[in-house]
Amino acid sequence: MLLHIDSSADVTADSVTRRLTETFARTWRTRHGTADHRHRDLSADPVPPITPAYTTLGRRVEREGFAPPAKVPALIESDAEQYEWDLTLPLVTELLGADTVLLGVPMYNLSVPATLKAWIDRVTFPGALTDPDTGESLLRDTRVVVVMARGGGYGAGTPRAHLDFQTPYLKGYFGNLGVPPEHLHLVVAELTRVDVLPHLAGLEGLEAASLARARATLTALAAA
Amino acid sequence: MLLHIDSSADVTADSVTRRLTETFARTWRTRHGTADHRHRDLSADPVPPITPAYTTLGRRVEREGFAPPAKVPALIESDAEQYEWDLTLPLVTELLGADTVLLGVPMYNLSVPATLKAWIDRVTFPGALTDPDTGESLLRDTRVVVVMARGGGYGAGTPRAHLDFQTPYLKGYFGNLGVPPEHLHLVVAELTRVDVLPHLAGLEGLEAASLARARATLTALAAA
Repeated sequence: MLLHIDSSADVTADSVTRRLTETFARTWRTRHGTADHRHRDLSADPVPPITPAYTTLGRRVEREGFAPPAKVPALIESDAEQYEWDLTLPLVTELLGADTVLLGVPMYNLSVPATLKAWIDRVTFPGALTDPDTGESLLRDTRVVVVMARGGGYGAGTPRAHLDFQTPYLKGYFGNLGVPPEHLHLVVAELTRVDVLPHLAGLEGLEAASLARARATLTALAAA
Repeated sequence: MLLHIDSSADVTADSVTRRLTETFARTWRTRHGTADHRHRDLSADPVPPITPAYTTLGRRVEREGFAPPAKVPALIESDAEQYEWDLTLPLVTELLGADTVLLGVPMYNLSVPATLKAWIDRVTFPGALTDPDTGESLLRDTRVVVVMARGGGYGAGTPRAHLDFQTPYLKGYFGNLGVPPEHLHLVVAELTRVDVLPHLAGLEGLEAASLARARATLTALAAA
């Protein structure tokens, strides 16, 4: 199953990441068909932020030695906790059911959109992404393709590279979850606001090259 | 005015950052009184994620040379854009009216909570935080006190320091906005989950020392 998650606040016509994730998904569907393509739009259908009941239940699960999802229902002590779990479990199940996770992530204020962080904060429930018997990550065989765009230039060696909290964050987050480096693909389109930001004038060629490279990489990854 | 923003999903009894921001606010109120203490709770009262109308309006503002807030109403073209602006302007005005911004920020999944990021994504509207005449930051005289907590250890020199996308991110974000380094105070309580995370056993002394240091720093900053 391809789990295709978009987090841009823009509609597709205005969104570089949505167009790029669709490039991947189109190629993927020609090989695998449409039935297993699951699209989740975090802007149209935001994941609610976590609440006190979520963190209270999460702490109880941690105290029980990071109990796996099957054992969580027996630990629930209130309607509010049940509500949180009913919001959370489908997202966990969906993530664990994916062979490939495709994420569209624009840079907002140097980092990822709040809507993506709300998904991350909810789906990373204590114990839910680890094999309770072996302690191994349940994402160790999952391929994760992260498609990023940013208005300016933040690549290695550029003056603003130290302000990139998008690429290194997602690399750190998924690595920490146990996605092996060889299964984690980070694809970046840079300088996407070259048309409107005056200090980027003259960099149109770099922008076009960056976008073409991202598109080619995604098409190759989707066909693999 | 003290703008006191909490972003922990926990209620105060369970939240290290809420107790620490209250430590600061209590001392501040003894000096300045209660009338100018404004509390914003991003968990009880979440800021809605930005929408296509927000980004469309933002891009139009950028194309008009980053028009300041006073000129935004004339650029609004739909009810949806008006709705977004009505949600955004009060947050911008509140931020610009603060002499001190006090932020309570737990680490969630190596970074800041989604609720804080939703506030950041909305309040950082194009042109809104810059003086239109001089191009200078409107936050250049604002004192920002960021109170952070994290369950594990992420300090300089520790094995997980490279996975800290909380402290460096907030330093980068506020620095990029034009808050001068001497007005930006980053206060961290480490190892706060030492009571429940088995791999932290034995570090109780370090946790207590870190919390005591944070509390003393905040009391001193609030009295300054």
